[in-house]
Amino acid sequence: MIRDKVAIIGMGCTKFGERWDCGYEDLAVEAYNEALKDAGIEKEDIQAAWLGTCFDEGMTGKSALPLSTTLKLPFIPVTRVENFCATGSEALRGATYAVASGACDVALALGVEKLKDTGYGGLPEFGTLLGTKNRLVYPNITAPGAFAMMATRYFDRYNLDPEDGRKTLARVSAKSHHNGSLNSKAHLRREVTIEDVLKAPIIAWPLGLYDCCGVSDGAAAAIVVRAEDAKKYRDDPVYIKALQVAASPGEELLYKWDGTHVETTARAAERAYKEAGIENPREEIDLMEVHDCFSITELVTYEDLRISKRGAASEDAKAGFFDLDGEIPCQSDGGLKCFGHPIGASGLRMIYEIYRQLQGKADKRQIEDPRVGLTHNLGGFPPLSVAAVCMFGIDRG
Amino acid sequence: MIRDKVAIIGMGCTKFGERWDCGYEDLAVEAYNEALKDAGIEKEDIQAAWLGTCFDEGMTGKSALPLSTTLKLPFIPVTRVENFCATGSEALRGATYAVASGACDVALALGVEKLKDTGYGGLPEFGTLLGTKNRLVYPNITAPGAFAMMATRYFDRYNLDPEDGRKTLARVSAKSHHNGSLNSKAHLRREVTIEDVLKAPIIAWPLGLYDCCGVSDGAAAAIVVRAEDAKKYRDDPVYIKALQVAASPGEELLYKWDGTHVETTARAAERAYKEAGIENPREEIDLMEVHDCFSITELVTYEDLRISKRGAASEDAKAGFFDLDGEIPCQSDGGLKCFGHPIGASGLRMIYEIYRQLQGKADKRQIEDPRVGLTHNLGGFPPLSVAAVCMFGIDRG
Repeated sequence: MIRDKVAIIGMGCTKFGERWDCGYEDLAVEAYNEALKDAGIEKEDIQAAWLGTCFDEGMTGKSALPLSTTLKLPFIPVTRVENFCATGSEALRGATYAVASGACDVALALGVEKLKDTGYGGLPEFGTLLGTKNRLVYPNITAPGAFAMMATRYFDRYNLDPEDGRKTLARVSAKSHHNGSLNSKAHLRREVTIEDVLKAPIIAWPLGLYDCCGVSDGAAAAIVVRAEDAKKYRDDPVYIKALQVAASPGEELLYKWDGTHVETTARAAERAYKEAGIENPREEIDLMEVHDCFSITELVTYEDLRISKRGAASEDAKAGFFDLDGEIPCQSDGGLKCFGHPIGASGLRMIYEIYRQLQGKADKRQIEDPRVGLTHNLGGFPPLSVAAVCMFGIDRG
Repeated sequence: MIRDKVAIIGMGCTKFGERWDCGYEDLAVEAYNEALKDAGIEKEDIQAAWLGTCFDEGMTGKSALPLSTTLKLPFIPVTRVENFCATGSEALRGATYAVASGACDVALALGVEKLKDTGYGGLPEFGTLLGTKNRLVYPNITAPGAFAMMATRYFDRYNLDPEDGRKTLARVSAKSHHNGSLNSKAHLRREVTIEDVLKAPIIAWPLGLYDCCGVSDGAAAAIVVRAEDAKKYRDDPVYIKALQVAASPGEELLYKWDGTHVETTARAAERAYKEAGIENPREEIDLMEVHDCFSITELVTYEDLRISKRGAASEDAKAGFFDLDGEIPCQSDGGLKCFGHPIGASGLRMIYEIYRQLQGKADKRQIEDPRVGLTHNLGGFPPLSVAAVCMFGIDRG
């Protein structure tokens, strides 16, 4: 249990997008400088750092060394972590455990990825993304194809007319686009209507272009200290309530999957709720950022997180439960939908939004008096995946 | 400071070598099963895992998912770390901080790499190994070439006749080969004489074939718990005294390097000594495993660790100070010289030897009554590198 042992005292996040103007290193510096300034500390105060990054430009391993040289970190420990789409959250987990253990007092977590230079499609072997050439893990299917199967299975299981189902998914995307339009750091900053989403080119039916997240460059960073030291740095630190990860145990799950839930998300969430002392997530959580790589992923995640009952996420979404003015705003920053998914950065980008919202500094997107926020990442093919669920809170005195 | 907060209760290590008989996954299972058995626990007892691996067979990112599926870990958190040649030690660092922070009670660190399937030479772009295509970090030079420059500079600075210098280096390698010949897990298990080393083909003068470590497959694993719980599992747990990492701060160091020392090693060592409460390393350390990717690296490391005075490592080596029956046996298992360097595995392979020696279970290589052991890894080109220094001790009651 690490609940309330560690607090975030500073964060930074670049503008996400087609950052042809920047190298990988420039993005890291941009996020880092904002985090340092926000924490009100100097770079000499950082005692250890964790870099979250999934690929480098050449598709070789990416050590921590480029981070230490880029930021000119003075011979401190710098460690790279990678866990697919949960990579950014893993960087925070590394820094948090180090601080909580007493190994150091002030630690940096930085996530960065530059995808536009190659793009997913440009990777030489997309099938190997999940790490094995024998393709047991992501067997000859694209990501949109895999999540499209989830959508059709979901429609079937809960007796949704496919066109009604598509409308629900479109509403999920339109909601996120509305939020992203209010966010100067988002990549895609425009409203789309439900009609726009429905009329967009199909990528893998029932998922169209606007059901899929974009491909972007970006970086985000957090600075953490032990909770008891946090108020020395600022009046409104954000406390880490839970950091949980769950990884699938075996490929046989591939053949047993019901297609309508993600067990790793559910397992990570239950552990996170226990760690954070949450009994009724629908009542106690004020906002969340979930892994909306596809609109259907967001919908199913509502259920895996026990915010919506099984089969009821569609009704909740249509009722506006997750809208910016709803009961639990979801993707108040625009989500992967508007930020794309520079893999190493996404987890920390989500946490950045929660951090700013809890501090009341989310500008036009500010929701009223939030106290508890959740982030969720999902990497891999749903039955063979890694999920991270993190929770954060603020002490309003 | 994490000194004495965490203990190792079980370890495993595969036979290293040309493991054509095994896949990456088989190696992981082999190390894992030995560690579980050694700890006397069941796989259900493992609450979180860290995987150290640098490349996968396809040179894409390698997430933690293949580890969780291979070991059928039951939805626990599994995280991949990577820090070049320090990758194995980083896996232990992740597990140790998690346990020390109270995030979990029993954690696994597993390092694995399969190099023979591609070999370093088979990698598409060796120049990118250090993570940047612009080659700032490892600028158009092979690893033997880089360390050969270190050797010639060392000879020059300390007025060693080059042939005498080569003989000293040969003695370092012959010593490790002797130790490796006594170790059934080593890849290269034969004695070589000083004459053999001197007569071997030159790779990059003054380094010949036997001055360079081999290319191997292998895996090693450790299971850790909080120190206060360790004796519930076994009578002779090994306590973690220090885990330190240092990364170079900037590429300008490339042009300022004296060629005869590695600043990251020296920085990590000083912090490790402080963490472990070591004042005089030459007197207080009983054995060590250092990063002998090349014979010259080992020689210079003696000095960077403050075991030998600057310029005096050559005399110490010739006097047998680091021999199996010397004052501080170094590479008692045979080192990278005899184990090769499957990158993710090496750090934990070194720790395995220290662990077994401290427990008095090192068979024909057993040294007398050791109490404090050290491991050292070095990744990268010396002036732009990552170094890890870890220290371990045993409580003899």
